[in-house]
Amino acid sequence: MHLSMYTDYALRALVFVALRPEGELSTIKEISDAYRISKNHMMKIVNQLAAQGFVESVRGRTGGIRLSRRPEEIVVGDVVRTTEAEFKIAECFAPDGAAACCLTPACLLRPALAEALSAFMSVLDDYTLADVIKPRRSLAALLNLPLPAPAVHTG
Amino acid sequence: MHLSMYTDYALRALVFVALRPEGELSTIKEISDAYRISKNHMMKIVNQLAAQGFVESVRGRTGGIRLSRRPEEIVVGDVVRTTEAEFKIAECFAPDGAAACCLTPACLLRPALAEALSAFMSVLDDYTLADVIKPRRSLAALLNLPLPAPAVHTG
Repeated sequence: MHLSMYTDYALRALVFVALRPEGELSTIKEISDAYRISKNHMMKIVNQLAAQGFVESVRGRTGGIRLSRRPEEIVVGDVVRTTEAEFKIAECFAPDGAAACCLTPACLLRPALAEALSAFMSVLDDYTLADVIKPRRSLAALLNLPLPAPAVHTG
Repeated sequence: MHLSMYTDYALRALVFVALRPEGELSTIKEISDAYRISKNHMMKIVNQLAAQGFVESVRGRTGGIRLSRRPEEIVVGDVVRTTEAEFKIAECFAPDGAAACCLTPACLLRPALAEALSAFMSVLDDYTLADVIKPRRSLAALLNLPLPAPAVHTG
């Protein structure tokens, strides 16, 4: 059982972009280099993330992408629902799946699997991008990004 | 996101066998014909179900397979854990996955995904084969199996 690599990289792209200081841009090349995948593949992913309003693009020579909402407002479950092409837990979940298995009209496996999938997504709905990037300095170091300034305690 | 076809067919094979009157045997050919998959593929699946103690084989010309436990004792989650080759929700869940993504040492996506997977399996642990085959007469009819006798109310 697995999520698609597409979803996997979409989440990683959001982590990368979220670790940049607010408003600063990341290029597709930087993100694809960091995760060692093709620029073309990352371009497709970023275009979908932009179409769904998770990131926004700034055009031009010094352009790039940045989050279009605060990390606290980006729910992991919502990202997965956007990027995962199909939630075909079993054959009967496909659009034409009912025809594929003769059990479908009376099957109780299907609702059990649907309930399990719902429990899976419900956990991911409890996490935002802000939760995921909490080890901010460690993650930035792993991605060779400039380290965020440590929190300053005043008073 | 999906389970493997292998798991899908393993569950269907158990449904078929469980719908036979107690102790009666089913052949691999009957099961593979019912679900229109190759006999070889079904043979592999049944061998694994036998190795894990879900079904038992009776050899010989009139041989076949039957459940080796009561349907109430076969937990759907246990079957899925047996037949699903890998629970690689994301790349970092593979045996060599930690090396595949540079975020792994500090990543909080991984524990979130692990928690989601655990919620998924926990639902499947609430269902037994007996729950799944409750519409017994409808399922038997869909599989062209002899219909079980209707419940007789005495007294």
